[in-house]
Amino acid sequence: MAGYGDTRQDHLRRLRRIEGQTRGLQRMVDDDKYCIDILTQVSAVTSALQSFSLSLLEEHLAHCVAEATRNGGPEAQEKIKEASDAIARLVRS
Amino acid sequence: MAGYGDTRQDHLRRLRRIEGQTRGLQRMVDDDKYCIDILTQVSAVTSALQSFSLSLLEEHLAHCVAEATRNGGPEAQEKIKEASDAIARLVRS
Amino acid sequence: MAGYGDTRQDHLRRLRRIEGQTRGLQRMVDDDKYCIDILTQVSAVTSALQSFSLSLLEEHLAHCVAEATRNGGPEAQEKIKEASDAIARLVRS
Amino acid sequence: MAGYGDTRQDHLRRLRRIEGQTRGLQRMVDDDKYCIDILTQVSAVTSALQSFSLSLLEEHLAHCVAEATRNGGPEAQEKIKEASDAIARLVRS
Repeated sequence: MAGYGDTRQDHLRRLRRIEGQTRGLQRMVDDDKYCIDILTQVSAVTSALQSFSLSLLEEHLAHCVAEATRNGGPEAQEKIKEASDAIARLVRS
Repeated sequence: MAGYGDTRQDHLRRLRRIEGQTRGLQRMVDDDKYCIDILTQVSAVTSALQSFSLSLLEEHLAHCVAEATRNGGPEAQEKIKEASDAIARLVRS
Repeated sequence: MAGYGDTRQDHLRRLRRIEGQTRGLQRMVDDDKYCIDILTQVSAVTSALQSFSLSLLEEHLAHCVAEATRNGGPEAQEKIKEASDAIARLVRS
Repeated sequence: MAGYGDTRQDHLRRLRRIEGQTRGLQRMVDDDKYCIDILTQVSAVTSALQSFSLSLLEEHLAHCVAEATRNGGPEAQEKIKEASDAIARLVRS
């Protein structure tokens, strides 16, 4: 159970939108659009990906990590370490 | 002239690869993959977008901004301000 | 109990080091050091602050959030929401 | 000539303020303040450092890089490469 079943449709909708934005970027490059306008659009896609990550992470904390914590034991520590490492990758990327 | 004509094919290749990665993310969500693995993949897409932005920006500085600077006048100042604003959006996104 | 008592000395050591780095930045500006060298040093301070945040956050998840989760009830949800909002601020800053 | 002489006082003022904020963080840790409040304050310091970097970088583009560009030759290319590398470090930190 991956902890994001309920909201899978919402996740897919966001990702399809992001895919559409990356196709839009290709059209902008193809049409020789102004660099700064392309950069602005890349920032929008990056923000959309970050929002997606943050909602996935919140769900993960609320389901997988919370469940492991309630069960206790070494798995709880592992899940928290794993989530912290994922947060570090998000912050640094 | 958008300053990235020479390397347009390289830009399009990168963006097509990023588009493919966003489709990969949709398959991961569809297949109920583990959240942490999805988050790792999102970080990879974000990094690829950042690299794309940085190479676009370097080209912009080397072409558009450099040309405006050689010509001098108020347009040079404007181009530098515009590039700085784009950098700020990149840093903050 | 703020969840970071055990490692307070480590936190204070890190923060004193960061304070020293910000004084080093003032000396660099005062001595008219080269912009790029100052920027490199600012990136080092930013990375040190991020590492500090990430270790504080991991502790918070392992203590405060884990405890609230074990107790269950609405407070568990609130703590997870609060931690997620803090993560979002970290990712976006 | 480091390109930031005119506004050195402004830079020093910002950095002194950031140094004060890092001392405030030490007091928060010492007083066992709530983790989330400390994290919020770290995000504020990180944002202040980013704003400092961005204003330093804009100045660098407007002075050092613009001057090298007007002079032309290999030094212009080097300055643009060097600035681009500094931007990449900012974006990734």
